[in-house]
Amino acid sequence: MNAVNIKQLAQQLNLSISTVSRALNDGYDINPQTKEKVLALARQLNYQPNPYASSLRRHKSKTIAVVVPEIANNFFSLAINGIQSVAREKGYHVLIYVTNESDRIEADSLQHVKSGRVDGLLISVSNKTTSDENLRDIEKQGIPIVFFDRVREEFETAKVTTDDFESGFKATEHLILQGCQRITYLMISKHLTIRNKRMNGYLHALKTYNIRPDKKWIIECVDNRDKNYTMIENVLSIKGRPDGIFASVEHLAVTSYHVCRALKLQIPKEVKIISFSNLETAPLLNPSLTTITQPAFEMGREAADILLRALTKKNFKLSNSRLVLPSVLIPRDSTRRAASAKMSE
Amino acid sequence: MNAVNIKQLAQQLNLSISTVSRALNDGYDINPQTKEKVLALARQLNYQPNPYASSLRRHKSKTIAVVVPEIANNFFSLAINGIQSVAREKGYHVLIYVTNESDRIEADSLQHVKSGRVDGLLISVSNKTTSDENLRDIEKQGIPIVFFDRVREEFETAKVTTDDFESGFKATEHLILQGCQRITYLMISKHLTIRNKRMNGYLHALKTYNIRPDKKWIIECVDNRDKNYTMIENVLSIKGRPDGIFASVEHLAVTSYHVCRALKLQIPKEVKIISFSNLETAPLLNPSLTTITQPAFEMGREAADILLRALTKKNFKLSNSRLVLPSVLIPRDSTRRAASAKMSE
Repeated sequence: MNAVNIKQLAQQLNLSISTVSRALNDGYDINPQTKEKVLALARQLNYQPNPYASSLRRHKSKTIAVVVPEIANNFFSLAINGIQSVAREKGYHVLIYVTNESDRIEADSLQHVKSGRVDGLLISVSNKTTSDENLRDIEKQGIPIVFFDRVREEFETAKVTTDDFESGFKATEHLILQGCQRITYLMISKHLTIRNKRMNGYLHALKTYNIRPDKKWIIECVDNRDKNYTMIENVLSIKGRPDGIFASVEHLAVTSYHVCRALKLQIPKEVKIISFSNLETAPLLNPSLTTITQPAFEMGREAADILLRALTKKNFKLSNSRLVLPSVLIPRDSTRRAASAKMSE
Repeated sequence: MNAVNIKQLAQQLNLSISTVSRALNDGYDINPQTKEKVLALARQLNYQPNPYASSLRRHKSKTIAVVVPEIANNFFSLAINGIQSVAREKGYHVLIYVTNESDRIEADSLQHVKSGRVDGLLISVSNKTTSDENLRDIEKQGIPIVFFDRVREEFETAKVTTDDFESGFKATEHLILQGCQRITYLMISKHLTIRNKRMNGYLHALKTYNIRPDKKWIIECVDNRDKNYTMIENVLSIKGRPDGIFASVEHLAVTSYHVCRALKLQIPKEVKIISFSNLETAPLLNPSLTTITQPAFEMGREAADILLRALTKKNFKLSNSRLVLPSVLIPRDSTRRAASAKMSE
């Protein structure tokens, strides 16, 4: 029966619960003498913080960390706007870490999250992440984690994604129905689940329409735009070049446009292009870009909403759940089939 | 002679300087008994922290905060990339706060910076900032502040900007030389210095070319894209509408493109458009967009470099300096003068 709690300490000392809690947790805004008094009584009564109390303390920081691979990408900037809109409603601060697709910066950021005063974590992993160590440590500290877009399947927590397989299928099917036969897939990292899901959708569509997949049409892009330019230029320069490009992220579509201009390939007449993209300028491009548009803002909102429910509702536990928000295919001129065009030879 | 310092406290207590420093500053990773011992001796000897010692403590966190008004804007995402590239070289963490152009969120973020463990601050103020209070508090705490792009002139510290007046002049002059006579200026907030500088450049160019400025051509845009759409639609719908648009930020150019499409106004034949912009897709738009492009990445790098020098060099003091990096006018089709065109009537 020695389980004295903060409330009892507060009563005995005639202090508020919040003051006692701050004293026990090295609050920065507390009188040192008050702190000493609290610590002395806590020792005397053998006070032990329990995980629940400690989690209460964490909630005090009212801060959530958001870790994203990049921000010069409209998906992530919109998702962050969604996250912030929910955080603001609930009075939470949002700290953003940008990993620039680097495993090392991601690890540094997560270490910072671990040692900081953060109540919860929203993360979209970098395309180079291979280790779980930091995330497991954060999990052990009782800091709730919610994944969005780029998830780690092996963590038993909430994940918010879009329908990557279906979208990969739809994008590829769209190109086929517009007359493409040799569709190149521009992918990012090998390590990402979404990469696999989108690519599996691509492969499944080819199979469905009896088109033999060809390894040389699957281009593994990197984090260097010049190198990507060269790879795309190479594939578009070979004999029997692709007549369709499916870009898995928007900057690869932008680079493809530049390559087509340089090679004087007409979009959509000679090459059709579709891309996962939240580019605000997609309808204004020349030609306008057909996109698979993710509900970026909503994904951010939903992920933040789940995390904040876990932080503020006493009986809400993060389960191994998945929320899938559908992406939308928006056909525009970059995949338009010329009225007079025959099937690609 | 009562100026006891941390070193003397450490010697008397037979503790390390770092332990004493953490005890005095409510370090979270210190034994409560040790802390009590340190605090007791500090009181007894009348220890007073001095700004230099306090600054040494701060350097321990190896974290800098970056406060920006938005991230769905290529200028800020590129500037953040520049900041991170320097921080990474020096082993610093970067915490990003996005204020969404809200004075309240900015105040919240700065309060968080104040109470957090941040060594230095890089900030581009929101367009609604009117109060100095939080920044002054941060300054008093000895946390160095460097402003970039959107600065507060009244702070005596380093500021990194672009040549806003000259760029405003050049952009307007370009439109005039391409034949425009009725140039509308799409501005953001009243509160920003850069707003004034860019607009003064616009007004000075009009004067230089003997064009009477007209208040109805100066449109004060807001943080709501629908409202901006309506304002731009209104100005382009009046009789004797503008033949040139100078957008002070890129999303206003994007909105102008949409309005011109809806109103079936041809760019550049009927309306020419130039914009401050770091849009990656500017050359791919239909028509390609003439831009005043800021050296965003370099501005971020320079600002971070100055801040980190202040944090790591013992004798480096932030002075009331200004670094101005020039922007570049890149003419494209949106301001092209038709070969056969005569001067606008």
